[in-house]
Amino acid sequence: MIISKETIEQAHERIKPYIHRTPVLGSTSINEYAGCNIVFKCENFQKIGAFKARGAMNAALSLSKEDLEKGLATHSSGNHAQALARAAHFLKVPSYIVMPSTAPEIKKRGVRNYGGEIFECEPALEARETTLKEVIAKTGATEIHPFNNYEVIAGQATATKELIEDIGQLDFILAPVGGGGLLSGTLLAAKYFSPGTQVIAGEPEGADDAYRSLKSGKIEPSQAKGVGDGLLTSLGNKTFPIIRDHVKEIITVSDREIIAAMRMVWERMKIIIEPSCAVPLAALFKEKQKFSGKRVGIILSGGNVDLERACRLFEEYK
Amino acid sequence: MIISKETIEQAHERIKPYIHRTPVLGSTSINEYAGCNIVFKCENFQKIGAFKARGAMNAALSLSKEDLEKGLATHSSGNHAQALARAAHFLKVPSYIVMPSTAPEIKKRGVRNYGGEIFECEPALEARETTLKEVIAKTGATEIHPFNNYEVIAGQATATKELIEDIGQLDFILAPVGGGGLLSGTLLAAKYFSPGTQVIAGEPEGADDAYRSLKSGKIEPSQAKGVGDGLLTSLGNKTFPIIRDHVKEIITVSDREIIAAMRMVWERMKIIIEPSCAVPLAALFKEKQKFSGKRVGIILSGGNVDLERACRLFEEYK
Repeated sequence: MIISKETIEQAHERIKPYIHRTPVLGSTSINEYAGCNIVFKCENFQKIGAFKARGAMNAALSLSKEDLEKGLATHSSGNHAQALARAAHFLKVPSYIVMPSTAPEIKKRGVRNYGGEIFECEPALEARETTLKEVIAKTGATEIHPFNNYEVIAGQATATKELIEDIGQLDFILAPVGGGGLLSGTLLAAKYFSPGTQVIAGEPEGADDAYRSLKSGKIEPSQAKGVGDGLLTSLGNKTFPIIRDHVKEIITVSDREIIAAMRMVWERMKIIIEPSCAVPLAALFKEKQKFSGKRVGIILSGGNVDLERACRLFEEYK
Repeated sequence: MIISKETIEQAHERIKPYIHRTPVLGSTSINEYAGCNIVFKCENFQKIGAFKARGAMNAALSLSKEDLEKGLATHSSGNHAQALARAAHFLKVPSYIVMPSTAPEIKKRGVRNYGGEIFECEPALEARETTLKEVIAKTGATEIHPFNNYEVIAGQATATKELIEDIGQLDFILAPVGGGGLLSGTLLAAKYFSPGTQVIAGEPEGADDAYRSLKSGKIEPSQAKGVGDGLLTSLGNKTFPIIRDHVKEIITVSDREIIAAMRMVWERMKIIIEPSCAVPLAALFKEKQKFSGKRVGIILSGGNVDLERACRLFEEYK
C-alpha cells in the first residue's frame, strides 16, 4: 500500500471530530538561543497528551463495522495503549491491551479510565507477542500496531498537515524517531503539502537504531537505552522504507542534551514535554549552524511524563 | 481618578504592540473533576511569563516623554520587576529595580536580561522603601508601583477584556489576590465588558489579608506566609476600594490545596504555572458546589517558578 496525499486528507477528515487541532507556539528567547525561527506544533496538548491519539483513531475508524465491533487490541506500555483504549471508548467497542507487568500504574490507570481491558505479561517482547496472539484468538479483536500500520502512519501525518496549513512554508521540519510512525507520517505530509521542506529526525544516542539502519540499508535492532523512553523501539518493515527514501538526515543526541532541551522548553515556554519530545530540539541545538536563520517546524510529540521522574532527571543532569 | 471603560480600552490599544494576546485553554478532565466548564486565560504564556507585562507597559507608556527618559523604578521581588525592566528595554530608557537579597535567582536573571539595574536590600518592607527612595533621589526615575497605580491596574484589566472578547459571557471569573492589581483590573473589566459576570478571588490562607480587610472594612496587614509567594503583600489604598466595592467573595485556600491544584494543571494541561497562579483553581475546587454546571473563567496569572522549587513543593505536599 502507498499512502497518498488523499489517504492523509481522508484520515484528517475522519479523525477531526475526535482530536484537538493543537496550537502552534513560538518562543522569542529560544529563537535567540537557536539562531533561527522555530514554530512548535504542540501535540503535548493533544488528547491523551500525545500525537498517538491521531493514528489510533484513524486506524480504528478505518476498520469495517464488523471488525470494529469485535474490538481493538495491541501490546504497548506507552501512549499508544491509552490512545487505542480512548478510540475504542468513543466508538463503543472493547479494547484489549497487553502490558508488561512492570508498566507504571499511572499508564494502567489511563487505559482503565477509558474502559480498556489489560492483560499483563512478562516484560519480554516474546511474552507480549504470545499474549497478544492469545487475546486475539479468543476475542477476534483486530491488532492495531503502534507504528507499523499504514492507517496509524496516515493518522500521525495529520499533525504535520495542520502545521503546514497554519504556518505555511518551512525550510525544515524536525520530528523524533522511535518506531518511525510519527516520522513516516511527517515525511509523507511534508512531501505532499510542502514539497520544499526538508525533514530531519532526532534520535537518542542510546537508541540510535534508525541512524544505523539508514547507514546499513536494513532494519537494525535497538539497544534501547536512555531517557527517551518513547523512542526505544526499532523501525518496522512499513516505516523503514518510507524513512529511508525521504528523510534528509538523522541527528543523534545524548541524554544530557535531551534533558537540557527539555528544561529549556519547560522554563522558557512554560509547557510540559516528555524527554522523547525534546529530542528534535536537542538535535537542532547540536547542529545550530545548519538551521541558522531558517524557518523550522518542530513536532512536540507529547507531554506524558511523571512529574517525579522529570524532577529526578532535571536533578541528575543539572 | 476613576478607571473608566475607555481607560481600559485605551490601555489595551496602547500595549497591544508589546504584549501577547494569550491563548484560552480548557481541559476536559479538569472540567469533569470540577463539575463545571472552565476556560483558562493563559497569562503564564504572557511576555515575561506573567500578566505583569501588561500593567508595567501601560504605566510606562502613560508617562510624559521627559519623565520616561529619566527611567523607571520599583521595588519588587517578583514578576513586576521583570515586567518593568522589559518595558524600559523596549522604550530604550533605564530601569532601577530594588529587590530583596532573598529574591529567586530566576527573577534576578530575568531583570538583568532586559538591562535592568538591580539594587539589593534587606527583605523587610522598610528597607525596600528606603532603598527605592535613595535610587529615585539619585536618578530622577519615576516609581511604578507593582499594583497601587491606576495605569498598572488598567493594564492588568486587559487580560480579562481579552478573555471576554474571546469567550463571551461567563458566570464567574476567578483571579488571585495579593496586592490587588490584577483583581482590581479583573473586577473593572468584568463590570464594563460583561456586567453579568461575578468575580471571585482566591487567596492563600497564610496571606489572607484581603479576606480580613473585606471583613474589617479597612486595609489589614499581611502575615505573608506560605507557598503563594506572588500574593504575600497587603492591599493598597487604590486597590482596596475597588475590591471592596466590586468583589463577590474571597475564598481562602491552604498551601496543600494550592499545590494540589498546581499539580493538576501541570499533569492534565501540560502547562507550567507558579504556586500563586494555582490559587483560584484551588478555590474553585474547595467550593465546587458554588460553581456546579457554570461557565467559569480563571486568570492563570503566571508561570515563573524555579523547576527545583516546584519539584520540592510537589514532593513536600505529595
